[in-house]
Amino acid sequence: MLDIRCPTFRFKLTNLCKFMNERTYIKNAHEKIGQEIVIAGWVNVRRDHGKLIFLDVRDATGIIQAVALPSHKEAHDAAKELRPEWVVSIKGIANKRPEKMINQDSPTGDIELEITSIEIFSRAEELPFDKDGELNLDTYFDYLPLTLRTERSRAIFSVQANIIAAFRNFLTENNFVEIQPPKIIGEDAEGGANSFTFDYFGHTAHLAQSPQFYKQIMVGVFEKVFTTTSVYRAEKHSTTRHLNEYTSLDLEMGFINDHRDVMRTERALLAHIMRVLEETSKKEFALLGAEIPVVPEEIPSLKLREAQKLLSEALGVDCANEPDLEPQHERWLCEYAQKTYGSDFIFITHFPMSKRPMYTFEDPADKDYARGFDLLFRGIEITTGGQRIHEYQTLVESIKKKGLEPEKFSFYLQAFKYGMPPHGGFGMGLERLTAKLLGLENVKEAALFPRDINRIDKLLSQ
Amino acid sequence: MLDIRCPTFRFKLTNLCKFMNERTYIKNAHEKIGQEIVIAGWVNVRRDHGKLIFLDVRDATGIIQAVALPSHKEAHDAAKELRPEWVVSIKGIANKRPEKMINQDSPTGDIELEITSIEIFSRAEELPFDKDGELNLDTYFDYLPLTLRTERSRAIFSVQANIIAAFRNFLTENNFVEIQPPKIIGEDAEGGANSFTFDYFGHTAHLAQSPQFYKQIMVGVFEKVFTTTSVYRAEKHSTTRHLNEYTSLDLEMGFINDHRDVMRTERALLAHIMRVLEETSKKEFALLGAEIPVVPEEIPSLKLREAQKLLSEALGVDCANEPDLEPQHERWLCEYAQKTYGSDFIFITHFPMSKRPMYTFEDPADKDYARGFDLLFRGIEITTGGQRIHEYQTLVESIKKKGLEPEKFSFYLQAFKYGMPPHGGFGMGLERLTAKLLGLENVKEAALFPRDINRIDKLLSQ
Repeated sequence: MLDIRCPTFRFKLTNLCKFMNERTYIKNAHEKIGQEIVIAGWVNVRRDHGKLIFLDVRDATGIIQAVALPSHKEAHDAAKELRPEWVVSIKGIANKRPEKMINQDSPTGDIELEITSIEIFSRAEELPFDKDGELNLDTYFDYLPLTLRTERSRAIFSVQANIIAAFRNFLTENNFVEIQPPKIIGEDAEGGANSFTFDYFGHTAHLAQSPQFYKQIMVGVFEKVFTTTSVYRAEKHSTTRHLNEYTSLDLEMGFINDHRDVMRTERALLAHIMRVLEETSKKEFALLGAEIPVVPEEIPSLKLREAQKLLSEALGVDCANEPDLEPQHERWLCEYAQKTYGSDFIFITHFPMSKRPMYTFEDPADKDYARGFDLLFRGIEITTGGQRIHEYQTLVESIKKKGLEPEKFSFYLQAFKYGMPPHGGFGMGLERLTAKLLGLENVKEAALFPRDINRIDKLLSQ
Repeated sequence: MLDIRCPTFRFKLTNLCKFMNERTYIKNAHEKIGQEIVIAGWVNVRRDHGKLIFLDVRDATGIIQAVALPSHKEAHDAAKELRPEWVVSIKGIANKRPEKMINQDSPTGDIELEITSIEIFSRAEELPFDKDGELNLDTYFDYLPLTLRTERSRAIFSVQANIIAAFRNFLTENNFVEIQPPKIIGEDAEGGANSFTFDYFGHTAHLAQSPQFYKQIMVGVFEKVFTTTSVYRAEKHSTTRHLNEYTSLDLEMGFINDHRDVMRTERALLAHIMRVLEETSKKEFALLGAEIPVVPEEIPSLKLREAQKLLSEALGVDCANEPDLEPQHERWLCEYAQKTYGSDFIFITHFPMSKRPMYTFEDPADKDYARGFDLLFRGIEITTGGQRIHEYQTLVESIKKKGLEPEKFSFYLQAFKYGMPPHGGFGMGLERLTAKLLGLENVKEAALFPRDINRIDKLLSQ
């Protein structure tokens, strides 16, 4: 693979930037000890000791200490002027530090760059706070273009990029085909409640709450499909569990026996993601004090009614006939799975049909309950999935039973009118998975630019 | 990599589907000649010759001919009933055909499955037309859940999945980080014209026309970022070049010399994509009668004014002072690049600043013209890119010059207030690239479920 960062790859033409063609990435400084190198990046910290001015310079690959000495007067004068977040390129000699001066905490802690020349690309205003310090969440969000530059934030979104890549790679390797479903939709799969609506050339359109209809239709085309797509929920509550725009990792697969084939697929997929994170992201997990979970060969699984019996006994509450789990129930069940099976994951299956969407497949062996599941992970539901109805007439009946009009779904229904195999799938919230993997308290910390009832970048009340 | 299609991977439990655990993919039938196998899929064609009933059965991997003989009465009776698009699994003996009966046009043309048993998963209504026949585009779109099942459509969207994967893989290999930018935005990068607006909890929000602001902000975090994201244009015209929702392949990179670094990156990226298509998609290109282009070592490049001089001379029109190119100009320039340089690609650089967005970097050596480019491919612009302003004050002035209020962009402006390197990037339309690669006349054929002024799945006027 051609490395497009490599200097030889660049145009050798008049340069805007004096040194750019010779740039060394900070993590590669080790290979050039004793040589004059050029680095480029942001001033992370500046410590002015008068004669000696120390700079910690940050690029995408690491942080290195540089020092300006009075003997290089021009560079020393420039260094006096620098402040945090200024963007520079620096020419200097990569000196090996004496043994006792080595900083063991940094991968470049054994090197110090003796500055011979500085070029300033852009200046920065004085920072409104220490961006690496403790910040309340509102301030953190108000200043995302600055606060996302912290080591912690970079770790979160590096891990997220690795998760999404691992998701796609596993499925592609297993002959799933990626699809690009629309987000502008006419009728909503979930019936239209909680959807954002807008004017589309004189007609009402919705923002998709899920790619459900389209991934099912595409099972008729490719048998197995996946997508990583934005979905929208116009929910009015602001909690640590909800986002109004989030990324859904979705798959749908044909020719299954039942929902357990889908669960088995999800297990294998999660095991793959964790293997990839073990290879790529150990440093980031360590920084956040988080652990990569072990995915057991078989994820424990309970029917909802079984789970509720355990909950009623343990918590002394009567939830045995509730159609769904409360947040505290999800937390308790995860503790139970951890204690009993040593698993961070637990499936809950067989929710009542009454609370599931119209495309849900009823278990013939367990009337009124769905061949479907939620996956709970470290206290929260991260996936809903299951088998779907594949017979046209059954689906039409189910739509009517939910009080909806089949005519409104005539486009979607064509897939079933013209032959669909038994199929199922699931959607997994990327931000929830990221947050729980890394031990973040609020799911909003796992969305780059989170949207909630109070905020689109800035607080809406401002 | 664990193959999740493999039978041993499935639960061995009570099955809904009699044969599913033993399923053989059609393309693998060769490995089992002489054996009894189970296939599953759709009836593609049925030919009833009375005693002999022939079925072409289609799954995700291929098409195979099966034959029902009167000697297997139950199967023969079932085969009589079958119609196109019914979903079945079939047990049968994979017989090698006699030499003279081999169908050379099909990869499984040397096999015939002698049916011993049939299971029907779902029935299909009579098809409203021959789905593989010539259809006008409106009928094709009206029946997408059916018409996407044709070999031609499957080829288009297989190629598209390979393009998007190649885009991501190349950039990931080259240390770009994938980001998930929001599509719900407050202020629009292009100034708000042509954006869809909607009510967001009592405030006006827009659907993003590009991830521009967010990918620039993220250069301050990761230096090099990319995204594959949906973007929205509320343009009222219906043409063969436009979609109201499309997928943009976007990247942005820091520490560049100028726009030519971005052009160089795009060239290398396109070369990689074509290499991947050579490896993965030759069959699909052959089916569509299309050729995978050669990406030259250096893509020819003209300044807009140079291009216009050529156009004026060749076409006898005076377009020398126009701010942009007309569609017929783009077509002529592509013919010119093909004739003169043997290239399917040509860059046009240095458009006037007056017509470019507020973040555009002016070329100091060519006042009033942008350090930016369009990439034309086979007659159409598929990319707009360039260097961006990275200095805070310059950007504030540029916003004012466009008649916009800097306060409205205060969130975005933070990135520049707190230090940004010289940077640039581009956006490439996935559907246009797909359409032009495969020789499709209308870009809408390269979107799974295209949205235009007249249609969200169904015609809006209905």
